[in-house]
Amino acid sequence: MTLMIQPVILCGGAGTRLWPESRGTRAKQFLPLAGDTSLFQQTVARTPAGADFLPPLILCGDGHVATVREQMGDSEAELIVEPMPRGTAAAIALAVARADANTLLLVMPSDHVIADVAAFHAAIAKGVHLAQQDWLVTFGISPDRPDTGFGYIASGGPLENADEAWGFVVDRFVEKPPLEEAEAMLAAGGFSWNAGIFLFRAARMRDAMLTHCRAIFEAADEAVAAGMRDGDALYADALAFERAPADSIDYAVMEKDDRTAVVPVAMGWSDLGSWHAVHALAGDKDAGGNAVAGDAFLHDCRGILVRAGGKRVSIVGMEHVAVIVDGDDILVMPLARAQDVRAAAKARE
Amino acid sequence: MTLMIQPVILCGGAGTRLWPESRGTRAKQFLPLAGDTSLFQQTVARTPAGADFLPPLILCGDGHVATVREQMGDSEAELIVEPMPRGTAAAIALAVARADANTLLLVMPSDHVIADVAAFHAAIAKGVHLAQQDWLVTFGISPDRPDTGFGYIASGGPLENADEAWGFVVDRFVEKPPLEEAEAMLAAGGFSWNAGIFLFRAARMRDAMLTHCRAIFEAADEAVAAGMRDGDALYADALAFERAPADSIDYAVMEKDDRTAVVPVAMGWSDLGSWHAVHALAGDKDAGGNAVAGDAFLHDCRGILVRAGGKRVSIVGMEHVAVIVDGDDILVMPLARAQDVRAAAKARE
Repeated sequence: MTLMIQPVILCGGAGTRLWPESRGTRAKQFLPLAGDTSLFQQTVARTPAGADFLPPLILCGDGHVATVREQMGDSEAELIVEPMPRGTAAAIALAVARADANTLLLVMPSDHVIADVAAFHAAIAKGVHLAQQDWLVTFGISPDRPDTGFGYIASGGPLENADEAWGFVVDRFVEKPPLEEAEAMLAAGGFSWNAGIFLFRAARMRDAMLTHCRAIFEAADEAVAAGMRDGDALYADALAFERAPADSIDYAVMEKDDRTAVVPVAMGWSDLGSWHAVHALAGDKDAGGNAVAGDAFLHDCRGILVRAGGKRVSIVGMEHVAVIVDGDDILVMPLARAQDVRAAAKARE
Repeated sequence: MTLMIQPVILCGGAGTRLWPESRGTRAKQFLPLAGDTSLFQQTVARTPAGADFLPPLILCGDGHVATVREQMGDSEAELIVEPMPRGTAAAIALAVARADANTLLLVMPSDHVIADVAAFHAAIAKGVHLAQQDWLVTFGISPDRPDTGFGYIASGGPLENADEAWGFVVDRFVEKPPLEEAEAMLAAGGFSWNAGIFLFRAARMRDAMLTHCRAIFEAADEAVAAGMRDGDALYADALAFERAPADSIDYAVMEKDDRTAVVPVAMGWSDLGSWHAVHALAGDKDAGGNAVAGDAFLHDCRGILVRAGGKRVSIVGMEHVAVIVDGDDILVMPLARAQDVRAAAKARE
């Protein structure tokens, strides 16, 4: 790559799918759910400042500023603080408003796992060619199962230069499908999961927003202009920002624009969207398929996920169960019921 | 009843079958496992000092003296402190050595549940007749299942007076049987479980011990004579007591004596010998058969036992599982595997 790319890391989410560890200001992205460092730290490390990447621009809420700074350590970064959550469109608009027109922005969620970073970088290199030609680029995850928890992207015609295929025109975006439709897409081929990773020229997205969601961009632009700087952080102006309608970048821009491209990539991606996924991704399982973090004694157990949270967990004669301890909260459930954690989170929070 | 009966409550046990709640100095009998008061307190309350019963004589180890006093509150009692555990024979020998010759001693474990106290009292009244005729009386629990965890007592000929049946001569004691034998005994009838509850005249047991296990009685007798009094407690002399061979009253006396009687009784008895039994006996289950002590949120659960131990337990989509929290220890296991708790207790203690 010849241009420097500006990583834009979205830290606004919270979510309860990994309750009780993920809650309140201790959101999923700041937890060490797949290794010794947090998902946020792994996201930062994936695009290291240097030859190809600028120091990251980090979008986060006020309640996460301290955690972001702590987890960044001495690494250079700029924070843009969202006064309130307004969805990914407004968050990205803040970054666009802050950036120089010709900067390439690489937008990434902060709570995903990517096992094959080389494949990710190769996909970025392809995407750069497209972004320079003013495509709004999204990276599509090659699906390995008919998952109904993701949106899908249908690839249209190829975008290539001489002998190199860079990606495909986006034919259409598909909402989270029912199982039958997911199976059909998997069988048909030419579909990928929408992972929320985007690459574009700042000015190109600015123009798209002014066309498709002007109110969002103008609110964000004014919030940046009237923002208050505190060291490495720019606090977006609350009065301006709260006028931005809450929307996702998919709805607000991507699905409406007619020059969007997808770069399919197989890179060991997971959104770690449930304790089931955390168990599946755990790299250090024992012979019985048990994944343990912390002090756990397992007797005659298989396929267990334990996160002991400083306590001492003892499990006898169980299979495919998660035991998650966080502070005074103890969650026990079958891994197959991982989606139902919301019921507990709702009752407890 | 015309004679006053001296309750003798055995608090020496510890055991790990209800780990992690039962351990170290916090033994099972001092826990509120079936209601708001401890099993020990319920045992004391079952034979209240007054018309029929003297204040209890409580046998316990040094480590349990404070707990016994705390749980007795203002109630009158005498403690005999065992310097070290030497089994039920030596513990009962201490009580016999301390008692007047003609006192009727009612020996009771402190960690059992008896739901029907009226039935228990009626059985005691029968036993009194037999004990006055110098029978060593044991109370036999009418079995309702072929349990392999108890010893059994085979009834011989009836012992009766005019129109009243008091009990039966003990034909023989049967060790914890294999399942086939337990089923055969249940089918045949005339067998009851040995619950370790005994009634006898002190002098009669003294003579039996001098015949069958002289070393035990002499050591206990000397330990009482050389004991140190501290308020309501008599600390048996350690040098003397440690000479007592460790043995159970069943082996040391009951199985060897030829004038033993059994009074069968159905009184809602349980030894609460496992978390499975604690769940079965819990009186306040919800419509799904879940028994909860403490702060638990259950979603789509059936047949669960939760003892939250001051923490917040959330369980989603599980059946027939125990979650027991005690301090920093969290135990999770199927109720059907309750016997295997020893594996965890052994690893953790």
